Amino acid sequence: MAWEYKVVREVEFHQTDMAGIVHFSNFYRLMEAVEHGFFRSLGLSIHSNDPEQLSWPRVHASCDFSYPLRFEDSVEIHLLVKEKREKTLVYTIIFRKLNGEPKREVARGTLVVACVKRDSVTGKMSAVPIPKVIADMIDVAPREAPDA
Amino acid sequence: MAWEYKVVREVEFHQTDMAGIVHFSNFYRLMEAVEHGFFRSLGLSIHSNDPEQLSWPRVHASCDFSYPLRFEDSVEIHLLVKEKREKTLVYTIIFRKLNGEPKREVARGTLVVACVKRDSVTGKMSAVPIPKVIADMIDVAPREAPDA
Amino acid sequence: MAWEYKVVREVEFHQTDMAGIVHFSNFYRLMEAVEHGFFRSLGLSIHSNDPEQLSWPRVHASCDFSYPLRFEDSVEIHLLVKEKREKTLVYTIIFRKLNGEPKREVARGTLVVACVKRDSVTGKMSAVPIPKVIADMIDVAPREAPDA
Amino acid sequence: MAWEYKVVREVEFHQTDMAGIVHFSNFYRLMEAVEHGFFRSLGLSIHSNDPEQLSWPRVHASCDFSYPLRFEDSVEIHLLVKEKREKTLVYTIIFRKLNGEPKREVARGTLVVACVKRDSVTGKMSAVPIPKVIADMIDVAPREAPDA
Repeated sequence: MAWEYKVVREVEFHQTDMAGIVHFSNFYRLMEAVEHGFFRSLGLSIHSNDPEQLSWPRVHASCDFSYPLRFEDSVEIHLLVKEKREKTLVYTIIFRKLNGEPKREVARGTLVVACVKRDSVTGKMSAVPIPKVIADMIDVAPREAPDA
Repeated sequence: MAWEYKVVREVEFHQTDMAGIVHFSNFYRLMEAVEHGFFRSLGLSIHSNDPEQLSWPRVHASCDFSYPLRFEDSVEIHLLVKEKREKTLVYTIIFRKLNGEPKREVARGTLVVACVKRDSVTGKMSAVPIPKVIADMIDVAPREAPDA
Repeated sequence: MAWEYKVVREVEFHQTDMAGIVHFSNFYRLMEAVEHGFFRSLGLSIHSNDPEQLSWPRVHASCDFSYPLRFEDSVEIHLLVKEKREKTLVYTIIFRKLNGEPKREVARGTLVVACVKRDSVTGKMSAVPIPKVIADMIDVAPREAPDA
Repeated sequence: MAWEYKVVREVEFHQTDMAGIVHFSNFYRLMEAVEHGFFRSLGLSIHSNDPEQLSWPRVHASCDFSYPLRFEDSVEIHLLVKEKREKTLVYTIIFRKLNGEPKREVARGTLVVACVKRDSVTGKMSAVPIPKVIADMIDVAPREAPDA
């Protein structure tokens, strides 16, 4: 049962803006990167071409920004499963700057994704219960998880 | 006293992803575009080079996504001032698809920006009260505002 | 017979980088925006869902950068048809800064797009002659075109 | 004397477009990533805050696209120094897809960057000779370099 995942990235030049810091929209792209990495760590892909045709659209995303990230900073993006509902997953995602001063949290976000299936006849998308085979692989992070 | 602003945009190809819809990170860029347009409508710029050296970093941004946007859709982005605090502004931002079926809300976000000043000696940034000349130009949207 | 198209855009904050100027990758997105606008001006879409299933992938793109663009600059993007070949179109795309000093060329690019069709059985993409109905709508810009 | 550098990246979801492939503008961001990695490998940063205040704006960038990249593909970006001129560097940048079928070149680009210095009095930027200490670290890739 998995309930967390981490990736580490170096800030690239194109992610910065004229204020000299990572543009806030890019934090959401990093959130997605760690979510997809979490899925891959389970042997799944977020965007499959299988007959099930499940996809995982975002229904909510938020982020609190407390400290800027700059070019060439090293950032750890830490995903924790916050809730596992019938048709949605809720992740907490913590950004920590690894270089310079001691490990420091710079932002903290929430991502809510729905499990959605495309009807093979009508093409209409609708939320469906997360398949048991997938739900059984995912656990909610323990309350006592570090920094959760 | 201004309390709202609207811009209309056509969805561009590079804003879409392989799911065929506007990538969720791009909604935050559109939020910022309407915020900056609101500031320009008051005769201000979000990023000035004046001695005051005010800037307006985001401290929080969130969005609920209810319906996808596709290539060449026309989207209205509607900013409403939700709260005016001493050092921060809170905006509600509503996305409406204008083409196809009747005007339809597709997403709704919140943006919280802080008024920040750079110390001319130390270079350190800190939150400061919104200058009166700016605060006096901005009002909170009335509760009865359409769709607010 | 059409051989040119123009769009005007204001530079947005997220298009800038920490050097304070529009990141060079964003010029290619603006090139594509004017190309798609040119197609729409002909009553076509660059990405159709029709039975023909034509698409127009880029096979080459280049740009020479002579002057920076900054936040809130107004930029005209001017497309001129440079060549019309059997299976490809070649565009010259000129960027001009409209605000501040007199109209000034800031960058000039070339975009080569191929006309490609997906085989309805194998799904394989291959370059095909540009359909006559489309080719007949497009002309090469005259040599004496201003700034061409 | 260094004349090449490589990075490997996994294609992320936000880099794709509705055609299901990496948007062409993102190849230029990958070009820049390998250029910056090359500089870091020499102990330099592309964007320093030192008194010299050198920067390396792009004066030309081009790319030929021969094969698409898709979500979760693994791509090697290979920089080779093509020319070392007095005030500019010319790089060849080769993209190879590492997964699936045998290593395959999918795109090949050229990046020309100028060595630019900001006048400490006027703030004006102008191209300057590449400092000897930097030029001495960089060599032109041998003709017989694999795949050059």
